[in-house]
Amino acid sequence: MLIVMENNASEKDIEIVVRKIEALGFTARPIPGSNRTAIGVVGNRGYVDDTQFLNLESVRQVIHVTRPYKLSSREFHPEDTVVHVGKAAIGGKSFTTIAGPCAVESEKQIFSIAGFLLEQGVPLLRGGAYKPRTSPYSFQGLEENGLKLLARVREETGLRIVTEAVDIVSIDTVAEYTDVIQIGARNMQNFPLLRKAGKSGKPVLLKRGISATLEELLLSAEYILNEGNGNVILCERGVRTFDNHSRNTLDLAAVPVLKEASHLPVIVDPSHASGNRKRIPPLSRAAVAVGADGIIVEVHPQPDEALSDGPQSMDFDGFKNMLQELKKIADSVERPVFSTNE
Amino acid sequence: MLIVMENNASEKDIEIVVRKIEALGFTARPIPGSNRTAIGVVGNRGYVDDTQFLNLESVRQVIHVTRPYKLSSREFHPEDTVVHVGKAAIGGKSFTTIAGPCAVESEKQIFSIAGFLLEQGVPLLRGGAYKPRTSPYSFQGLEENGLKLLARVREETGLRIVTEAVDIVSIDTVAEYTDVIQIGARNMQNFPLLRKAGKSGKPVLLKRGISATLEELLLSAEYILNEGNGNVILCERGVRTFDNHSRNTLDLAAVPVLKEASHLPVIVDPSHASGNRKRIPPLSRAAVAVGADGIIVEVHPQPDEALSDGPQSMDFDGFKNMLQELKKIADSVERPVFSTNE
Amino acid sequence: MLIVMENNASEKDIEIVVRKIEALGFTARPIPGSNRTAIGVVGNRGYVDDTQFLNLESVRQVIHVTRPYKLSSREFHPEDTVVHVGKAAIGGKSFTTIAGPCAVESEKQIFSIAGFLLEQGVPLLRGGAYKPRTSPYSFQGLEENGLKLLARVREETGLRIVTEAVDIVSIDTVAEYTDVIQIGARNMQNFPLLRKAGKSGKPVLLKRGISATLEELLLSAEYILNEGNGNVILCERGVRTFDNHSRNTLDLAAVPVLKEASHLPVIVDPSHASGNRKRIPPLSRAAVAVGADGIIVEVHPQPDEALSDGPQSMDFDGFKNMLQELKKIADSVERPVFSTNE
Amino acid sequence: MLIVMENNASEKDIEIVVRKIEALGFTARPIPGSNRTAIGVVGNRGYVDDTQFLNLESVRQVIHVTRPYKLSSREFHPEDTVVHVGKAAIGGKSFTTIAGPCAVESEKQIFSIAGFLLEQGVPLLRGGAYKPRTSPYSFQGLEENGLKLLARVREETGLRIVTEAVDIVSIDTVAEYTDVIQIGARNMQNFPLLRKAGKSGKPVLLKRGISATLEELLLSAEYILNEGNGNVILCERGVRTFDNHSRNTLDLAAVPVLKEASHLPVIVDPSHASGNRKRIPPLSRAAVAVGADGIIVEVHPQPDEALSDGPQSMDFDGFKNMLQELKKIADSVERPVFSTNE
Repeated sequence: MLIVMENNASEKDIEIVVRKIEALGFTARPIPGSNRTAIGVVGNRGYVDDTQFLNLESVRQVIHVTRPYKLSSREFHPEDTVVHVGKAAIGGKSFTTIAGPCAVESEKQIFSIAGFLLEQGVPLLRGGAYKPRTSPYSFQGLEENGLKLLARVREETGLRIVTEAVDIVSIDTVAEYTDVIQIGARNMQNFPLLRKAGKSGKPVLLKRGISATLEELLLSAEYILNEGNGNVILCERGVRTFDNHSRNTLDLAAVPVLKEASHLPVIVDPSHASGNRKRIPPLSRAAVAVGADGIIVEVHPQPDEALSDGPQSMDFDGFKNMLQELKKIADSVERPVFSTNE
Repeated sequence: MLIVMENNASEKDIEIVVRKIEALGFTARPIPGSNRTAIGVVGNRGYVDDTQFLNLESVRQVIHVTRPYKLSSREFHPEDTVVHVGKAAIGGKSFTTIAGPCAVESEKQIFSIAGFLLEQGVPLLRGGAYKPRTSPYSFQGLEENGLKLLARVREETGLRIVTEAVDIVSIDTVAEYTDVIQIGARNMQNFPLLRKAGKSGKPVLLKRGISATLEELLLSAEYILNEGNGNVILCERGVRTFDNHSRNTLDLAAVPVLKEASHLPVIVDPSHASGNRKRIPPLSRAAVAVGADGIIVEVHPQPDEALSDGPQSMDFDGFKNMLQELKKIADSVERPVFSTNE
Repeated sequence: MLIVMENNASEKDIEIVVRKIEALGFTARPIPGSNRTAIGVVGNRGYVDDTQFLNLESVRQVIHVTRPYKLSSREFHPEDTVVHVGKAAIGGKSFTTIAGPCAVESEKQIFSIAGFLLEQGVPLLRGGAYKPRTSPYSFQGLEENGLKLLARVREETGLRIVTEAVDIVSIDTVAEYTDVIQIGARNMQNFPLLRKAGKSGKPVLLKRGISATLEELLLSAEYILNEGNGNVILCERGVRTFDNHSRNTLDLAAVPVLKEASHLPVIVDPSHASGNRKRIPPLSRAAVAVGADGIIVEVHPQPDEALSDGPQSMDFDGFKNMLQELKKIADSVERPVFSTNE
Repeated sequence: MLIVMENNASEKDIEIVVRKIEALGFTARPIPGSNRTAIGVVGNRGYVDDTQFLNLESVRQVIHVTRPYKLSSREFHPEDTVVHVGKAAIGGKSFTTIAGPCAVESEKQIFSIAGFLLEQGVPLLRGGAYKPRTSPYSFQGLEENGLKLLARVREETGLRIVTEAVDIVSIDTVAEYTDVIQIGARNMQNFPLLRKAGKSGKPVLLKRGISATLEELLLSAEYILNEGNGNVILCERGVRTFDNHSRNTLDLAAVPVLKEASHLPVIVDPSHASGNRKRIPPLSRAAVAVGADGIIVEVHPQPDEALSDGPQSMDFDGFKNMLQELKKIADSVERPVFSTNE
């Protein structure tokens, strides 16, 4: 840690900082400059809370050399984490596809999709039962009835289920029915929910908030890991920027940066990022090529009739064609697409 | 509503859209252009869900003329809403100051601040008992013990209390002790929490998310209003941009825009926006001048010792001087600073 | 075009707008809504200037159905533009690599790079002679001496040259020596420079500004095309967002969006986007997979000694390995990497 | 300066950095941490170029304690710079208003505005003769004829003139006719233009780019100051963010931050920031209150008929009323509005 003093800091101000450092059991190394002094902190074995230094008027800035997350950091856990869900292994050598509708709408809809995914060798079905919606007047999901349909799909098809939890009460019901708990972008910093997801023992798919830094994402993962649950899958799903040609700006560089900083698997959601089904194949191909461990994609038998997210849902033919393309690229980067058919 | 077709849309595609509009009981008015056709929708008396139109491949864009929020809109409620808390009236002619520490830390701390605010004529004390923190390793608040201290402050001083609720379980306890429930920026789209806040019957101070549009903020307010709770105070607290000279970019233009779009009162939080106590006086002065209905500011008897947000907390002298300045500006815009001393 | 009136617009206000539309020779189609009226404009054969409508207080918004760019739009020019430079064809079936140092530093440096690129089959060498630098104290390039070195490289190796022009005077000298004129991100809206680049008759590589929308990029291309110069190559090089894990956020979705909106070729610059040589291979692979027509990459014989952009420059071995990877992905998407060796 | 090593840096890597530091004549102070080493640089008397350190693979980050700008920094020039233009003193105790049309359109228009401003005591008239426009099809200004009209206004009214220069050729003509050369937001990093503006000897009004950091703005000012021209006025005019309720997001906190970092005067442009004349009075009041040295505002006798920027231009009555409001706030912060009438 380095503490940068204001340029008008007095000898006494510097003395105060040095004593605070020493009181924590560390060594202070003042580095006088031409305009201001910086003070190096030596001897800490982890991240040091900077609150008491930043509180001082004479301190301009505190620079951390150690990262504030620990359990999610690769520095302390060099090997890749692989999250096993059924036969799929997310974070291993293969590339995993998660697909399904935005929301569970009816028995007919969800079984039609499940049958199709089974045929395609897709191992995990996504589908929302509780839907966080910007407007109180939009369709909010089938709730527990949706979960029950998902459970029946699993029983009858062997597909594993990914579904979202939106609050600390209904998450218990969600955890009962699902294989993977999804935490949506809006809830990335819903800390009580993260703690409950950690305690559930189920793998957690954690989506990046639309304006979250990667450090914040890893600190949110840390909340889950800190409850003893190591099965966290990170998901890049686009960030909010000045630009509006797509719903959000998919930040594919986040994939190699996260994979360097953390041992956790990283997948990409091209559907929510783009908001437009025409963009899903090129962005999915790019996700494979950039090194992602998988994708999560919205598919619907009749996107024209979807109760939510229709414009960004692929139909069956489009999805099938895309899967063929992804297999070729995956082969060329030696990350074969995982398929339950093989 | 206007539906813009893709430039390769066929006569049949246009016919499909026209029939869908008519099926909703509205009138369709096609407007053929040189490259594409747009179809006007006439006869709707409120916001029309665009899902079924956007789902069509032949539709490029749907443009709403009517806003998606209704209860928070000034179009349907032209007079200003005034939220009464104790003697203070937020949203009326006067300018209201809410002040206090980031977090309740101890009896001594909170009573020292309360005494000072009483002296200054400040009517509302803010103070966090449940603290949402980016890192699981940071101080998370005194929780119910913090609430109890706040309740004693109210009893012994008459100050009214603003404190944050962070989940749908503990909000019941919060609602018992507080006068105003704060919903923090990270929870602006925590919809189950918004609904519970709406049901609590207490006034709600709703902070804008760091990357929320004003339309999203008003839709979040709509969740609260939709539960029959009309006492919502909006709060601009800075947004996340590319810039890093301050913690966030305070968007003061949001104040007149919100006040034009909505009847709800709008206050400003210069402490969280700037992250730096030196910026609070100029930004607070600007908040008065731009037409805000109040500010919410962090004050601490010893910012150097604060357990959280010390760098952005003002000390007593700084706050007192600022209040003098604000009074002068408030007079010049005919919005006198409300003071319980007068 | 659709003109949306304010909700308090009177019959007379609407009448004024209708007459203005008719004065332009178009037909007005009022669409009365429950809260406000919108007025469709029918009969225009291109983009209509909205100034005189927006000037009116009674007008809330003008919505364009027709895009403001025409020459760069695919609507009016459905076939792909292919820019031929030497044997390379940018925008055709193949994937083109442009590589070289940030700046021309010396004869030895530039000939060492040129020899290496020749070996690798790379057809175009990039290298700056005029460098726009944020600080006046940074190295500003060898200027005309740099251009002369580039011209000698072309003569002796047959490599084609891409170099940047920074002002309307020195661009004449640049145009004399180079094969492709680069317009940097900071100059994307330097309109006098765009006009001169258009007049030069040379192909122009136009980089997207760090906060430019795609519409603005296409309007800047329009300035060049409008001078009768159709050889414009668009370049996505990352945009500025709240995030700082990389220097800029590479917006790969811009590639399919631009290729749909425009007939111009689109390449990607992963070096400037990431600012970190470790990110260049994954982002380049993603660029191939997403459908870009090429990449422009910084290579240096000794990145440790580079006078500018060293951290984002690849060394020879790194570049060679990457090229092997790109060939495999390019094959899998049927866009073979163009090589002068074949 | 502090050089942070990668966590896998070897003793030899550290040694290389230490020797590079010593070769520059400075002292190296290694600070070993638990995961990585940082190396303090002591003895430099100014900003040190970080290129040769960042080029090394073993170096993660270079942290500067000294700012990269010097001439514009308050550290080396503690007293406020006051720019004198006619009787006005920008940066002194008073608050200066600059007003006028977006573009000079005709003799009648510009003299009508000039007469009105004279009456109001406004000392400086703004008006564009060369207009940088996003689209090549928009009105581009009257060019030299516009300059001649401005020169006649000055002669006949005594008003001082602010007008924009857009390229390094026509700037000579602009400098001949104007009192203050404006550099627009799009040209903030047009470095050849900045150098020419510096050499012109005329005061320069430098607008912040729509996605420029304050450090970049001050480095652009440095280009002008470095030519021996100390009369630079900085202008905050809104930045581009995710938000779209206004054309840009006016960043008023930039005012106190810039005034602390630099001795240069800082003014605010509420017209371009908001793009909406209704927002100009509240934002102008806020600009006075936050401590700006002035504003630059668009005024037009008939905004409905303006050839450009009509929606954000005030009419005479609106401007007059606003000036009355500003005077009251300016008095309350002891920054009287400068008026040539007094």
